[in-house]
Amino acid sequence: MRVKNRLLNFENKIIYQDDNGFMFSLDSMLLSNFVSVRLSDKKIIDFCTGNAPVPMLLSFRTKARIFGVELQKYIYELGYDSVKENGMLNQIELINDDISNVNNLFSSDSFDVVTCNPPYFKYASNSYINAFSEKAIARHEIRLNLDLILEKAFYLLKNGGVFAMVHRPERMIEIINIMQKHKIEPKRLRFVYPKKGKAANILLIEGIKNGKSGLKVEEPLFVYDEKGNYCLEVKKMFGGDINVAG
Amino acid sequence: MRVKNRLLNFENKIIYQDDNGFMFSLDSMLLSNFVSVRLSDKKIIDFCTGNAPVPMLLSFRTKARIFGVELQKYIYELGYDSVKENGMLNQIELINDDISNVNNLFSSDSFDVVTCNPPYFKYASNSYINAFSEKAIARHEIRLNLDLILEKAFYLLKNGGVFAMVHRPERMIEIINIMQKHKIEPKRLRFVYPKKGKAANILLIEGIKNGKSGLKVEEPLFVYDEKGNYCLEVKKMFGGDINVAG
Repeated sequence: MRVKNRLLNFENKIIYQDDNGFMFSLDSMLLSNFVSVRLSDKKIIDFCTGNAPVPMLLSFRTKARIFGVELQKYIYELGYDSVKENGMLNQIELINDDISNVNNLFSSDSFDVVTCNPPYFKYASNSYINAFSEKAIARHEIRLNLDLILEKAFYLLKNGGVFAMVHRPERMIEIINIMQKHKIEPKRLRFVYPKKGKAANILLIEGIKNGKSGLKVEEPLFVYDEKGNYCLEVKKMFGGDINVAG
Repeated sequence: MRVKNRLLNFENKIIYQDDNGFMFSLDSMLLSNFVSVRLSDKKIIDFCTGNAPVPMLLSFRTKARIFGVELQKYIYELGYDSVKENGMLNQIELINDDISNVNNLFSSDSFDVVTCNPPYFKYASNSYINAFSEKAIARHEIRLNLDLILEKAFYLLKNGGVFAMVHRPERMIEIINIMQKHKIEPKRLRFVYPKKGKAANILLIEGIKNGKSGLKVEEPLFVYDEKGNYCLEVKKMFGGDINVAG
């Protein structure tokens, strides 16, 4: 069912969601806060943009023009309606297309930043998953995979441009391998832990097109404190009173 | 100058050190605590063992036979004297040799665990460093490099054997690449942070010979609390009253 939530507790922006699986998530918030933006940025693109949380959240951090690409029409429309209702159409352009098609939409070496909150799970065609369900396509690598994401990021980015992604720590080694294959050198990592004493469950990774080697592992982020409340840094990101799907 | 310190505050074991650069370090303690040991382990080897903190600390965790290889005679002798004075000669055997020579000392596929606290810094032959100084050899990749370490670890380890290393996060991408080149798949990572709000400055990494992909990023470790005291986990490792070089 389509629901309407506040995007953040400031500026009274909203986000249309669907409580059957297309809820604005912590991951999008973390990615939007993590990615490096520069004053000189002119064009940013978000792959797998879903209902467009990353473009909308990024619009608070940058004056750059922001594109978002979403394959699935129903989810794209949730995003489009939010962007429109928020008066963000002058900065954000959503595109209902497959990222395998970006070469036909944009010229190479034309973006400062590429962000992506992709499907996290591998897909085997003999699995029990319904490969045509909207939810499965958003969660599993059915219509795209890491190799395609990095190939298209390399194509779009300027030399020295930034690629940032949120993913699962379990797949970090593979992610690093594929980034390097496509000449996007990992430069910054941040691990997100559900709380103290637990292994990381979210990976934030940023690389630079044709960058030199040398990695920074930033301070860890804990989502919840010992009482089960959001930690201060997360509270600050959200502003406080938003519904977040896990 | 040679100095004698307690190795830990329990069991009254000692460690001979030299206050001109060969002091027992936090890194060795972290590595000894991090590496996976199993009850079934029969043989463990520590490369770049220095004055042998890792073999001695590991002896509290395992009944396996522990070998330590150290190239530099003076440092090897500090280790040997400590092992002897601690009554550990029945479990620990130190070898004053180059790890490039291990194929002549041991058969392949014969070890359960390889540990290493290697020189952290790259070496350029045109640098200002005195490549013959004991301290430079312990800190810079003059007499060995990551490629040699991983080549020899692969040679010595049984299938499914464990390789664990302490290093700098800046070089993590390169470390992962070289581990994978030598078919030692990274499986566990832990980052050590000097205190809250700072980037990681120590990397603990463990891989499995011919292991499957899939990584666990364990809970972060903070060395100091906000008052500048050791955090509880580090205090527990040390027991409390030992001199530690940074």
